[in-house]
Amino acid sequence: MTIETVLQEQAQEHNLPPWRNRVLEKRATQSALIPSAWHLPTSLLSNPSASSIDNIRTSDILSANELAWTETTDIRDLVELVKCRRVSSEELTTAFCKRAAIAQQVTKCLTEIFFDKALRRAKELDDHLMRTGQVVGPLHGVPVSVKDRFDVEGVDTTVGWVGLTNEPAKSNSSLANLLESMGAVLYVKTNVPQSLMMSDSYNHVFGQSVNAFNRALISGGSSGGEGALVGSRGSILGIGTDIGGSIRVPSNLQGLYSICPTTGRVPWDCSFLHQHYLIPPVAGPMATSLATTEYFMESLLASSPWDLDPSVVPIPWRQDLATPSVGRKLKLGVVFDDGVVKPQPPVTRAMHETVDALRAAGHEVIEWDTSLHIAITNLWTKGILADGGQHCRSLCNIVNEPLIGGMIVGKETDLLSHEEREQFEATKLTLQTAFLKQWASSGIDALLMPVTPWVGYKPKTWVKSKQWVGYTAMWNLLDYAAVTVPVARVDRGLDSVGSGSNAEWEGHSIRNESDAFNYLQYDVNLVHGMPICVQIVGGRFGEEKAVAVGKVVDEVMNPTPFHP
Amino acid sequence: MTIETVLQEQAQEHNLPPWRNRVLEKRATQSALIPSAWHLPTSLLSNPSASSIDNIRTSDILSANELAWTETTDIRDLVELVKCRRVSSEELTTAFCKRAAIAQQVTKCLTEIFFDKALRRAKELDDHLMRTGQVVGPLHGVPVSVKDRFDVEGVDTTVGWVGLTNEPAKSNSSLANLLESMGAVLYVKTNVPQSLMMSDSYNHVFGQSVNAFNRALISGGSSGGEGALVGSRGSILGIGTDIGGSIRVPSNLQGLYSICPTTGRVPWDCSFLHQHYLIPPVAGPMATSLATTEYFMESLLASSPWDLDPSVVPIPWRQDLATPSVGRKLKLGVVFDDGVVKPQPPVTRAMHETVDALRAAGHEVIEWDTSLHIAITNLWTKGILADGGQHCRSLCNIVNEPLIGGMIVGKETDLLSHEEREQFEATKLTLQTAFLKQWASSGIDALLMPVTPWVGYKPKTWVKSKQWVGYTAMWNLLDYAAVTVPVARVDRGLDSVGSGSNAEWEGHSIRNESDAFNYLQYDVNLVHGMPICVQIVGGRFGEEKAVAVGKVVDEVMNPTPFHP
Repeated sequence: MTIETVLQEQAQEHNLPPWRNRVLEKRATQSALIPSAWHLPTSLLSNPSASSIDNIRTSDILSANELAWTETTDIRDLVELVKCRRVSSEELTTAFCKRAAIAQQVTKCLTEIFFDKALRRAKELDDHLMRTGQVVGPLHGVPVSVKDRFDVEGVDTTVGWVGLTNEPAKSNSSLANLLESMGAVLYVKTNVPQSLMMSDSYNHVFGQSVNAFNRALISGGSSGGEGALVGSRGSILGIGTDIGGSIRVPSNLQGLYSICPTTGRVPWDCSFLHQHYLIPPVAGPMATSLATTEYFMESLLASSPWDLDPSVVPIPWRQDLATPSVGRKLKLGVVFDDGVVKPQPPVTRAMHETVDALRAAGHEVIEWDTSLHIAITNLWTKGILADGGQHCRSLCNIVNEPLIGGMIVGKETDLLSHEEREQFEATKLTLQTAFLKQWASSGIDALLMPVTPWVGYKPKTWVKSKQWVGYTAMWNLLDYAAVTVPVARVDRGLDSVGSGSNAEWEGHSIRNESDAFNYLQYDVNLVHGMPICVQIVGGRFGEEKAVAVGKVVDEVMNPTPFHP
Repeated sequence: MTIETVLQEQAQEHNLPPWRNRVLEKRATQSALIPSAWHLPTSLLSNPSASSIDNIRTSDILSANELAWTETTDIRDLVELVKCRRVSSEELTTAFCKRAAIAQQVTKCLTEIFFDKALRRAKELDDHLMRTGQVVGPLHGVPVSVKDRFDVEGVDTTVGWVGLTNEPAKSNSSLANLLESMGAVLYVKTNVPQSLMMSDSYNHVFGQSVNAFNRALISGGSSGGEGALVGSRGSILGIGTDIGGSIRVPSNLQGLYSICPTTGRVPWDCSFLHQHYLIPPVAGPMATSLATTEYFMESLLASSPWDLDPSVVPIPWRQDLATPSVGRKLKLGVVFDDGVVKPQPPVTRAMHETVDALRAAGHEVIEWDTSLHIAITNLWTKGILADGGQHCRSLCNIVNEPLIGGMIVGKETDLLSHEEREQFEATKLTLQTAFLKQWASSGIDALLMPVTPWVGYKPKTWVKSKQWVGYTAMWNLLDYAAVTVPVARVDRGLDSVGSGSNAEWEGHSIRNESDAFNYLQYDVNLVHGMPICVQIVGGRFGEEKAVAVGKVVDEVMNPTPFHP
């Protein structure tokens, strides 16, 4: 009896639709790619700790060295270890493969797993270094994970669609090529939501990714698998993508540093997606230190990616802009509340603590006028829905897979005609120009604001949230670079409601359905201990400026490394 | 009896369609804007010289000083004269207004004329300099002309459409704003073809622009009016636009230096046009010296246009890249013939003379493989026709103006659906990537090729030419920067056919309809003396590289300034 027969019988038994067969088959294949030596004991799996980190540490699958390497936060330390041959790429890759394998068992963060290929590549890199004394590139021998959005030769790019299973990519995406030319070892791809258009990474193929620090909560989306993997320290550097918050939301929920760049800085041969959505998607790094995200950008841009990918703009990493000037005080804008959805108490506290610390360090922080924000976000939504859901329907239709409800996907009535698309572009330019005027005349170095007005949801809650994604999505319409930096954790003592300590929240008058949902969902006991990031917006092509401000924020808020 | 009544009667008398009234009215208004003191004598107008320059010099309307100022080729010399108060902006502006007025009478190069406003502005700038001792910006007091494609507050932007007459722009385009903030004096806008999609600047509103050096020939298009004006030295710096050759073709026909940049370097708040055509239009400088084009780019980019226009990429002018390295020999590619339309003898001679001179100076020149060129140009055409002509039809429909035949405008069958547009974008990326691979692996500094395979046409001939615009248009699809540099003149002695000196041309086997047209049209007696430029392609964001190579070409080919 073949495995396919077993699966088919299983499907028939449970009266499952035919596409379920492909799912069962795909999951069985995926599961078989984790060596049995790295399987968590049944005792632990049946009663795991909330935190993925705890499960990994107590599993005894990683050695003390392997734990230490994988819990390193600055990628330059690992690069140095390999370069000086104190650790081989094979050892390092084994450590990350083990950790990713365990993270997968407790968070379901992965899609494609190719440990064997990774270990072969690691050995080749070790041999090369041994033979030549030279590293291949700035990431020599270090494992790097990528979201399932990127083609990696030989494995699927399902992007959460059943109909795209069993179609291995014939070649690498330009990003995968560049990572390999920089010496990185690719070993896993990470999970996403169906359609990519929700902040909860759930799809029919790979199921539900949960949070690295609390299995009861979501990992965010659409780069949610990446968030859970990096959060679990199953990867030191993950590459996500963002069209409305997809890098920043999972980073926020897992206390990660990340960069959501302006279009054209990070290679991504996927520009035709622009045609579906009228909003350009971008790729960017997610990590456990700002230094790692910056090292990625700097070394990527030093490799002249514009000679490989025609959509990349030839601007090298401008180290001078990314370095805070000694003695020069920053001028920053801040948005505590965008006027649409009031952030929950821990978010507001995190923002105030950050602003207070910056002011105490002598920096100027001014409140930002948000009057353009609603129009910008509404236009973003119009752009995202512009294809009337055709793209998703056609992907569903391959195998008659149902569309998951509540995602930000267009209905037929949302389809924009040619003329309406032209009008969209004209309105976009008008809004971009008006906002640029406000930005340039304000003289700010960057703008601080929440990433999301909420701090955690149980799975499948976000889809009911009347999705106000304005805190992140407006920057995609404007095509401004933004960085996340973790600054606080939810604290039952400080963030409770009813004690009178959050009087403003308690007296809040509901503004709309999204605000009502956000207000009513807040439960400090559910989210206690969860990390909170601040979003630092640096303007168009403002990656370096945002990183410079991020360094200042990190210094004042995290005198010891942030560790959720 | 009002002027309108006269015009209406006139129209009825001649049995003209109603929209002709608007044309007559517009032309009467335009004509009245030229002071009678600057009218050419009837004797000269009825029997003008072929060259606009001759007509201007013999008209006695400009003083010797005014002739000298307007025939200056390096804009920095004029900036210096004004800055040191040796010439006032008012004097300089008067000189260029006079010269533009005469050029208009013999070439019909202008659309909007606003000399009064310009002279008021010039006086203000003079007062400012007198009062403060400071210049307003790097173009303080110098007149600059712009193609009719740019909005200038208070005057029409007809772009050659009758239906757009009498609708003065409510505000400046970002480019006009930036020019003014740099201290420039705007005084005229210049003529274009209806639809912008032909290389012959003819429309129903303003009629036919002819060549500055030979009234029997066309000025090119779509920035043909600008070409004729700058060619006549009625402007020292003109700003054109290019979506398939519209800056480079008129520059070629009038022996001008020009830069057709990559999208995002020169501000132009017109990005929604991209939606019509799927090919991004760009703006760039046209001038009588490379120094003027470079000064424009350098000072424009020093003014941080990205703080005003959200479509500009923040890359300053990279002086190091724009300067040829002393001692370093260039590696250049060359295309003599793209294999589709064989260039006429003077073009081939000009290319060979240029390559020979470069090789003699020690530079390496390799022949370029053109196998990707046809596919790239064909995709360009598909993109240009993608709206099925809707945009042009809607502009015609305003006043029931007929569409001029033979332009590159889509028919209803060319309309691309949403899915076809996605396919277009995917194919574009594939071609861009393949071409980039060829480009990057070749190691060339730039590519030399003809601008057009022809050297001159009589009016209304181009529309019958089966338009092969591959020599220029492919660079718009790739979004590569290109520069034109004049290198030769047609010479009856060297470029004749039948004498045996052009045996290759005489023995040429016709390849296709476009090639046949180009072959049969060639008449050395018609085009004797006309200038020929070489096109120098510098790659994506390769403006500086192309300028650096342009300087080398200019040095070897034009030991004395090129003057047709």
